Amino acid sequence: MRNTFHDDLDAITNTLVVMAQLVHTATKDATTALLTADLDLAEKVIKQDDQIDALQHELDAKTIVLLATQQPVASDLRALVTSLRMSADLERMGDMAHHIAKLARLHYPATAVPPESSLTIEEMGRIAGLIIEKVAKIIKDRDLKDAQQLAVDDDEMDKLHRKLIQSLISKDWPHGAESAIDLTLLGRYYERSADHAVSIARRVYFLVTGSYQVKE
Amino acid sequence: MRNTFHDDLDAITNTLVVMAQLVHTATKDATTALLTADLDLAEKVIKQDDQIDALQHELDAKTIVLLATQQPVASDLRALVTSLRMSADLERMGDMAHHIAKLARLHYPATAVPPESSLTIEEMGRIAGLIIEKVAKIIKDRDLKDAQQLAVDDDEMDKLHRKLIQSLISKDWPHGAESAIDLTLLGRYYERSADHAVSIARRVYFLVTGSYQVKE
Repeated sequence: MRNTFHDDLDAITNTLVVMAQLVHTATKDATTALLTADLDLAEKVIKQDDQIDALQHELDAKTIVLLATQQPVASDLRALVTSLRMSADLERMGDMAHHIAKLARLHYPATAVPPESSLTIEEMGRIAGLIIEKVAKIIKDRDLKDAQQLAVDDDEMDKLHRKLIQSLISKDWPHGAESAIDLTLLGRYYERSADHAVSIARRVYFLVTGSYQVKE
Repeated sequence: MRNTFHDDLDAITNTLVVMAQLVHTATKDATTALLTADLDLAEKVIKQDDQIDALQHELDAKTIVLLATQQPVASDLRALVTSLRMSADLERMGDMAHHIAKLARLHYPATAVPPESSLTIEEMGRIAGLIIEKVAKIIKDRDLKDAQQLAVDDDEMDKLHRKLIQSLISKDWPHGAESAIDLTLLGRYYERSADHAVSIARRVYFLVTGSYQVKE
């Protein structure tokens, strides 16, 4: 009986990894769609967000069935509750990619990102991709060093975010308020996505050690 | 034994209501601090967010203990899992108030909101307050009509949000990009807070009926 239960737990972990991989692809594609005004790619990301949402619902339903039927305690219970939280984080990260893709679509055939900001946004997209790739690995391997390292990658994201906002409020910003609004939102989407990734890394750390590394 | 368990469930509901009330006060105070450049009030909101976070951790710990020791099934299990989700929504709503208060503090002694936008922000704050007040009642009474009504109030918030963004991108906007950025973020904080409230109302609807009223 316990073996079946641990197979079920493994299946849940695998589904979380699949969700993270879908979020990774969505975020990469959304960034490409944004920077190259690729309408088809934006539509693809928008459409596929339903898949991530469906996966979350399915996963949560399975988790709740396990809670009810297996009545787990201690670390098994912690794993299931943590899984509910991680799926919520991943779903929100999917939403961020979805928001980015919608901004790309809104501006088509123009690009939403003016040339002055495209390198920063490209870099934010690259770091977001890196962070989400790591998160998939952290969920899979439960490596504590990787989990702690993620906060450092997030510092990089915060720096880029500040740089972006600084450029918008500088006297030389030539693109007016509308563009500043879009970039403010874009900056926040990437930053929030990375925050959710850090939150997942913390949950894995908690799962393994039973304590949070830092105040959440 | 079951009676003790249901007392515990009631206690969890009561704590959720207290969290909602704290979020209500925080959101109201943050809006006042923002519109009147009241530094003391902003500091109070920023400080009290720790209290909301602590309440969430405490509540989640209690919920997990109940999951482990009482091994609930069916509607009791659903109530505990839903409580974990609602506490996360309320905690995020607290964060939104915290963000608003930090923007107020950042601009002190000036106000972050220029005169052109203050009526819209005031109205967004009023609707947010109304929505959060209703959410506390929905958590407490589990009234399905109230839960459904909340989506209508949220439409009002979305309208105000669009109005705010429209004013920022109009040719007449005289306050430059920096102010547009702040107002974009403020608009998003109020809108997100209301979204979390709608999400709570949906969870209550699900708790009572076993099905979601609309796609989440």
